[in-house]
Amino acid sequence: MSTKVITLLTDFGLRDHFAGVLKGSVLSVCPEAQVVDITHEVTAFDILEAAFQLAQSWRYFPAGSIHVVVVDPGVGSNRRPVVAEAAGHFFVAPDNGVLSMIYAEEEHVVRHASEERFFRHPVSQTFHGRDVFAPIAGHLASGVATSEFGPVTEDYLRLPLEKPVRTARRGWTGAVLKIDRFGNLITNFRADEFARVYQQDFEVLAGLRAIEKVERNYASSSPGEVFFIEGSSGYFEIAASQASAAKILGCGVGAPIELRLL
Amino acid sequence: MSTKVITLLTDFGLRDHFAGVLKGSVLSVCPEAQVVDITHEVTAFDILEAAFQLAQSWRYFPAGSIHVVVVDPGVGSNRRPVVAEAAGHFFVAPDNGVLSMIYAEEEHVVRHASEERFFRHPVSQTFHGRDVFAPIAGHLASGVATSEFGPVTEDYLRLPLEKPVRTARRGWTGAVLKIDRFGNLITNFRADEFARVYQQDFEVLAGLRAIEKVERNYASSSPGEVFFIEGSSGYFEIAASQASAAKILGCGVGAPIELRLL
Amino acid sequence: MSTKVITLLTDFGLRDHFAGVLKGSVLSVCPEAQVVDITHEVTAFDILEAAFQLAQSWRYFPAGSIHVVVVDPGVGSNRRPVVAEAAGHFFVAPDNGVLSMIYAEEEHVVRHASEERFFRHPVSQTFHGRDVFAPIAGHLASGVATSEFGPVTEDYLRLPLEKPVRTARRGWTGAVLKIDRFGNLITNFRADEFARVYQQDFEVLAGLRAIEKVERNYASSSPGEVFFIEGSSGYFEIAASQASAAKILGCGVGAPIELRLL
Repeated sequence: MSTKVITLLTDFGLRDHFAGVLKGSVLSVCPEAQVVDITHEVTAFDILEAAFQLAQSWRYFPAGSIHVVVVDPGVGSNRRPVVAEAAGHFFVAPDNGVLSMIYAEEEHVVRHASEERFFRHPVSQTFHGRDVFAPIAGHLASGVATSEFGPVTEDYLRLPLEKPVRTARRGWTGAVLKIDRFGNLITNFRADEFARVYQQDFEVLAGLRAIEKVERNYASSSPGEVFFIEGSSGYFEIAASQASAAKILGCGVGAPIELRLL
Repeated sequence: MSTKVITLLTDFGLRDHFAGVLKGSVLSVCPEAQVVDITHEVTAFDILEAAFQLAQSWRYFPAGSIHVVVVDPGVGSNRRPVVAEAAGHFFVAPDNGVLSMIYAEEEHVVRHASEERFFRHPVSQTFHGRDVFAPIAGHLASGVATSEFGPVTEDYLRLPLEKPVRTARRGWTGAVLKIDRFGNLITNFRADEFARVYQQDFEVLAGLRAIEKVERNYASSSPGEVFFIEGSSGYFEIAASQASAAKILGCGVGAPIELRLL
Repeated sequence: MSTKVITLLTDFGLRDHFAGVLKGSVLSVCPEAQVVDITHEVTAFDILEAAFQLAQSWRYFPAGSIHVVVVDPGVGSNRRPVVAEAAGHFFVAPDNGVLSMIYAEEEHVVRHASEERFFRHPVSQTFHGRDVFAPIAGHLASGVATSEFGPVTEDYLRLPLEKPVRTARRGWTGAVLKIDRFGNLITNFRADEFARVYQQDFEVLAGLRAIEKVERNYASSSPGEVFFIEGSSGYFEIAASQASAAKILGCGVGAPIELRLL
């Protein structure tokens, strides 16, 4: 049997000991697990950002991987821990909507992880990553069946996932989902749904600029030029060759993006 | 035999290659070791911060784990490397006080790691993490007994660990030990020693504010409200629901915190 | 057989999911690989900085390690992926010069990794780290011979590596290669080529200061004093005891450094 991969996605940051402790807590239950960071730099408490990052990541890991998501503004309240199965992967997270994009894209079974014998005791009120989510992941990696953790639930939380809204016969208003390190604006226009931009003239309005060009790769433009491009995430991005499109356009997360087919 | 876990806690940061090289140096001695970061973002040269982060972390790792701490302003001077054993864990560090909280809390044996055959040669004057501490950890993980590394020593360095000072019949003055990513102020009031705040009225003076409320979890307050809370570290923290208490109060590390029982 | 180590060196940063996805892509091909970060914080698109960091790191990893470097401003263009072998290590990178320091220091064989059956499909135009470089590394770790990946090539890209220029009979002008987290200025004066500074008087001009002292370790100076020191990288550095030399001198990467033997 090959090593079990456990991924971590949190808003803990890397300055504190929290991410390290999460790993210790996993390894104390299952020393053979291979623990891999997706990121610990999700904006604090930003459930939607975490949902998006998870959706961009999980399918590139081996089947059977266990994905632990701890962006948990409600820690210590009565929000439930859940264990979800989808597409041969496992997800351990608070029931606060952070798995919404998995739910939207894949068939899934969600369980309320109510069996406290899989928790670390005493359970603190402030660090369920360490005491609840990491131990559950460790037990999953050790071979405990999902059915052991608690009953199937149907009333788990799903967040509305904003899609572009049709605002004219040939026009849609979408939004910026995320800005990556390179300053690329990841929009919520799915590349497969808006593939027409490859065949016909269009205009994308972002900030004060109109973008009329779609590129196949970052390198084909001259430095500084702004263009539309199908990102590795499956969404169209607004990018600038070797420069930050976010800075050029002055746009942030949530900024409206209009697409008009001409 | 299960994989040996080696944790790393340094002030190397993540922009440079230092933390990566530390891992290479461990793996060159013991390729089977599982190397886990606690953090590399300790404030440069801050021995007390590292001591605190270690104290918050080590016990959540499996028994037999090896904890390497490299916050080492005296690298190249004649400060000694030490190997300590406590509570079934191992610690490899410069003898500069960074293990003080372990010494204060657990029975321990400290050895001066003088046996240079376990070092990487030539030993540089500026990077003992790579040439001294990581190789020692690798040899420990490979099964070398602690007694091989050098003689037991009694005159290792212990830093005075500040505790709150009693400044009135029902008043104590403590301090902020650390500010975490969420802006929570971790104080040096131990939750088990000051549990009376749950039973009686009290006042905590921090910055220009008086805090009179203790909460069991972050979620029970309204956003922005400031309160006292038992943190996952075992110390009381001053927190604000979904906001940074540090920003609200304008307090930094070392700021005085007064507690008065009313 | 021992675990195969795969190191990652990129400019992806740690806020996004890119570094995590790279690991997933490696582990999907070779779940037994041990994936280790060197850094993901290379300045975006800075091929020379990545080349330097790689040169400082690779030899501290076990023989047979696989080093994946993804600093790739030309992603999606026709720059080729390469697999290089040198000194018993393997390197997987875009052919953009990022391996130049390896080429300069070690005998090497470079192959154009043209065999697309080792890629992840479909290959995106924007994320070859995930779809090309990581899968190649995974297959190498799984035991695929380098000859399988494509033909040996001789016209791979080598960048000119700046060395200090002799500007007087006893004077050289070099430059700052890098500034590390502690504010040490790493110069391009190799310690073995300029060892004369230990035997005779000299002057190093940096910013507005003249430095006349070489130290064997950081701890031997009084706090704040600026000095020349042989760094762990094999180059002379300009350092300040427990302070940032970069801040004291006001120098950045690329700043000229003059050395005069007196």
